[in-house]
Parts: sequence; C-alpha cells; structure tokens
Amino acid sequence: MKAIASIGYKVHFGKNVFKELNSFLTKNKYSKYFVICDQNSFHNCYTELLTNCKKLQSAEIIEIDPGESSKNLDTCAQIWETMLELNADRNTLVINLGGGVVSDMGGFIASVYKRGVDFINIPTTLLSMADASVGGKTGIDFANLKNVIGTITQPKAVFVNINYLSSLSQRDTKNGAAEILKMALVSDKVLWKRMKSDYELKSIGEYLYRSVELKNRFVKKDPSEKNVRKALNFGHTIGHAVEAVLLGTDDELLHGEAVIVGMIAESFISYKKKLITKNDLDEIVSCFKNTFTLSPVHPQHFTAIDLLILNDKKNSNGKVLFSLLDKIGSCKINQIVPAILVKSSLEYYNSVVHDKN
Amino acid sequence: MKAIASIGYKVHFGKNVFKELNSFLTKNKYSKYFVICDQNSFHNCYTELLTNCKKLQSAEIIEIDPGESSKNLDTCAQIWETMLELNADRNTLVINLGGGVVSDMGGFIASVYKRGVDFINIPTTLLSMADASVGGKTGIDFANLKNVIGTITQPKAVFVNINYLSSLSQRDTKNGAAEILKMALVSDKVLWKRMKSDYELKSIGEYLYRSVELKNRFVKKDPSEKNVRKALNFGHTIGHAVEAVLLGTDDELLHGEAVIVGMIAESFISYKKKLITKNDLDEIVSCFKNTFTLSPVHPQHFTAIDLLILNDKKNSNGKVLFSLLDKIGSCKINQIVPAILVKSSLEYYNSVVHDKN
Repeated sequence: MKAIASIGYKVHFGKNVFKELNSFLTKNKYSKYFVICDQNSFHNCYTELLTNCKKLQSAEIIEIDPGESSKNLDTCAQIWETMLELNADRNTLVINLGGGVVSDMGGFIASVYKRGVDFINIPTTLLSMADASVGGKTGIDFANLKNVIGTITQPKAVFVNINYLSSLSQRDTKNGAAEILKMALVSDKVLWKRMKSDYELKSIGEYLYRSVELKNRFVKKDPSEKNVRKALNFGHTIGHAVEAVLLGTDDELLHGEAVIVGMIAESFISYKKKLITKNDLDEIVSCFKNTFTLSPVHPQHFTAIDLLILNDKKNSNGKVLFSLLDKIGSCKINQIVPAILVKSSLEYYNSVVHDKN
Repeated sequence: MKAIASIGYKVHFGKNVFKELNSFLTKNKYSKYFVICDQNSFHNCYTELLTNCKKLQSAEIIEIDPGESSKNLDTCAQIWETMLELNADRNTLVINLGGGVVSDMGGFIASVYKRGVDFINIPTTLLSMADASVGGKTGIDFANLKNVIGTITQPKAVFVNINYLSSLSQRDTKNGAAEILKMALVSDKVLWKRMKSDYELKSIGEYLYRSVELKNRFVKKDPSEKNVRKALNFGHTIGHAVEAVLLGTDDELLHGEAVIVGMIAESFISYKKKLITKNDLDEIVSCFKNTFTLSPVHPQHFTAIDLLILNDKKNSNGKVLFSLLDKIGSCKINQIVPAILVKSSLEYYNSVVHDKN
C-alpha cells in the first residue's frame, strides 16, 4: 500500500511498516526515545516493535492505564515529570504506541513539552488508525469535556501496521468502523455502498486506507478546521456529549459507539431540517442496525447531554452549530440546531433501538 | 513611534495605542473578550483601558495573584474552567494585560484552549514590553523549571502603552532594563554604549523600542529557536536556574535580576573560554555594578542550580549548551560548558558583589 502524504509527513501502511520506521529513525538523529503506551498496547504490540526496531531498545517506556479516563491533565503532569527526571531534551522523540487515548494525549504532551518535541504515531487500534493517523489534532479531556485542551500539531510520521488488526476484538473493530462509515457518509457514496452490504467488515483494511485518503483531503484543505474540515465532525456533536455523560457509568461507550448514536441522531436532524430524504435516513439507520449492537440512551441523561453540547468546540457566538448530511456522501457545515431538536433526535435514536424490525 | 511588524502581527508603540486597539477590535469580530490580569495590572491599568476601549466593557475579567508562583498548571486549570463555565467559544479573544507572568501564561492558556483561540498582549511592565512583545513564546513553570511547558504561538497584536512606564517602581524599571541590556550585549554595541553611560536609564523608552526591533530580527529569522534565536538566551541558562532555585525563599529575585546574575556569570564563562577579553568582562561587570544593586547567591544553592541547568531547554544529547558572548554586541550559540565552570562563574559573581571598588 502506498504511503499517504499529509501535511509535512507521511502515513505508511502495510503488513510490515517497520522498514520505514527504521529508515525514519536512521535519518533523524534523536537524543532519546520515549514510548507512550497503555497496558494493552504494551502487552500486544511492544515486543513486535522492539524485535523489528533495534534502535528502540534504549527507549524509555511510559505506560498508562487504558481507557478514556486516563486522558487528563494529571496523567500529562505525571508524564512530563518523568520526562524531566529522565532529562528528555528538545531533541527527544515521543512514540505514541496505542489507540486514540495514547495518540491524542501523547501528541499533546509532546507538543507543549519544552515548547514542542517531535512525535510519531503507531496506532494499534482500528479507531486510531482511521481517526488519529492524519489531522494533527492532539488533546485531553478536561472538566468532563472531550479534547477541550489541546493543539493542532502534526506528527513527524505515522506507521499503520495492518497486522495489529487481526488481534482486535470484534468490539474494537466495530469501534473503528464507525469513524470509517462517517467518512463514507460525509464524502464518499461508493465507500458507503460497499460497507453497508459488508456487515462483517471483511475488507476492513481497504476501507481504512480509503478513509485515511479521504480524511487527508479535508485536512490538507483546511488544517486548522476553519471551514470544510468541520464536515468530519458529523455525528460528533451529539456523539461526544453522549460519550462524556456516560463516561464512568455502567453504560459507558467506546468513542465509535458514541459516534454511532451521534450519527443516527444527527441524520434524524438532517432529515428534520429537510437536508436528506426519509429514504436516506432509513438507509443509514438500517446499515447501523445491521452492523452494530445499539443500546438506548436513558432520558435521565438528556439534560446533561444538552449542556455539554452548549460547550461544543464548534459553537460560535452562542449558537450551537452542527455538521449535517445534505445527502449520503456529502455534508453541510455550520448548521444551527435548536435544543428541542437535539432532544427529539435522542428520542428518535431510542425508538430505533427499541424497534426490532 | 512606528509599529514594528513581526510574524503575522504588529507591535504598536506610543503614548496612546488605544486608537490602534479600537481599530483592531472593530476589524476582528470576536464573540467574547477575556481579560487576564493580576491584582497590580488590574489596579493600575484596567480603568484606563476601559475608558479608552468601550468595546471591552462586556469583557470578562480573570484576575490572578501577582508573581511567578502563580504561573503554573493549577492556575491554568482554574482559568480554563472559568472560560468553559462562561461558554468561551473558539472565536474568543484573550487579552493579556500585565507583566511577563500574565503574557506567558495567558498566551499558553489561549494557545491550547479548544485547540487555540486568539490572544493579544498589552504589556504593563518594562520587562514584558521588552521580552514578551515579540517572539511568541508562551509557557508556565512546572516541577520547579521555568517555562518548561508551553508553545510557540504568535499573538494577534501587541499594544505597548508607553504611559505605563511612568507608574513603574525603580525596581521594576531595572528589571526590564536587564533584558534590554542583554539585547545590546548580544547584538548592538551602539545601544550598549548608550545605556552603560546612562545609569539612571533616562531614555528608557528609546532603548525599549530599539531592543524590540533587534529582538524581532532574530525571531523573524528563526521563529522556533533552532539556531540564531538561541543568542537571546545569553544570561538565561544560569539566570533561569538561579531564579527557579531562589523562588519562594527570602532571596527571591525578579526575572531581570536573575538574568543579571546570569549575564555576569556567563560573561565570565565567555572570558574563560577565551571568547571575550578581560577588558570586555570588566566593562560589562562595571556597567551592571553601576546600574543595579547586586546580591550574592549563597553557595548552598550551587548544587541545585547545577541540577536545573542540566534540564535547561537548550541542552541537547546530554550536553549543556550555552549562548555566550564572543564580543560586546555579538553572541555565539551552542557552546559546551563543563559543570565546573558554572560553579566558578557563580563564585566569580559573588566576588564581584563583595568587591566594593
């Protein structure tokens, strides 16, 4: 698979990307390597990395607890302290080996440590391969809001090792597939058609590659998300709020799972605002029902979800702005949505979940 | 005084810069204004700002405790929380009204809030006018290290109101003069000659303007401090360490005062490394003795200072790198200095302080 050229760096793909990684490490002389990982990525992926990259034998390993609840300022402070204790200088390379939590937070940690050191991403989950490979968004959660503190800083390279996919659970694969389906819905009807009839996601590697290509186009046109790139937030205004509200409860959702709730709800809003037809809405909902197991969102959470949406990063001048579909494969940004429609959309989502047909 | 054009923004100077500020606020439509200040700048400068800028009457005011000890992650977290509570969106303008602590930390807060909102600086001390007007360095102290967490992010404009200078204490004026003298030492012999014979700093406004012009040239050539800009760190490797070690003790120094210790010590190192002559060293020391009141650095702190220098941001590959003078008005970067010479330079500094001649 051909490497995808993003803003000043490349995303390498394939079954053996370690050759490219070795050549990257040889070309760039770093003083120290810090591998940030979680217990899962350390356990599943570190040995293979080390076997294939002898240079990393001297790397310092920083292991965090897995899961979104680690992605906060306290964890960053601990990691900065460790880096200082180990005399990490400005010529240090941070290597983010893990899922979205590791790459988002590791990128943020690197981008402000001593006013910025280089970092690379080695995503180990489908979600982080699809979502965090291009775009340069780094960030942590704060005050119960997702990614509200962060920077836009590009990695120096990304290495997508397709081998990791075979070790993923079905839940993790579906978690990543949600973001790929979002890319299809906002920008590629052909990809959508292929995926919606492949319930078991058999060609997931191909879908992934296509979705990174698609995302890269948006990012290159609008790196700092002033306009077209906002399309990628489809499903995320409601999705992020649902994810944050359920975090730490028994109903906690993975990011992709929350984005599916968001995509169904926001497709309903798109329909209600006469941007898509009833047929489009039904086609979207039917695909999600076929591919994923959906759980209801308890109405007791609706108010908290509404409050979080008020603080969504995309809002401007007190107006709540959504990125909505205007047909399958196309998206319209900066759409004003009244609070009452958000509530209806969540009720609609719950009715879809309960509808067994 | 003519505005100085920096990287994508202007530094406005003069006795009434509010006209430019008003036109900036009219041209750029922000959704909300947040003024970050400390008790001093609020007390001394806020009324004048508000009287001259009616648009800011709706601004939210965030007041911090004055002094370096506020410049930390906890204060940032409190301010981010306040901004979130008040629904600050991405189209918010942060206005840093204060000295170096306010502009460094306020810049950092803005540069990572929702992945970056705009900020402007209205420096109210001579030090921040000289040091923080151009360069885009933002940052906070962490783990007893100065500015170790931060970004390089340019403000959208800087407004230097020369009127504020008349309200400054002599100590604050001298604090700022230290950075201006540094600019002279590393890049302008003419400015150095003028300042060294003006003990009472009568023409400080002119020196300030010249030093911002000089600094701007370095910054434009090398925004991310990869090479020539490192010259501006002369006096700061030892100076920052001294400042950090004495922070919170009875001997606490202002930033400029610590930089004077650093400049005398690092001039001594420059001499010992045969980069400058004994005459140059004596001329530098004599100017500092005439203009400033110097206090000794107790030898009990030498080890802690050494340890901090090991973690200086400029170091690379475990080597401690200094920016040293190679004549008055010129600087040589990336100079390796052994630890023993750092200790001798502090002993030399103390001998200068004790020498009454």
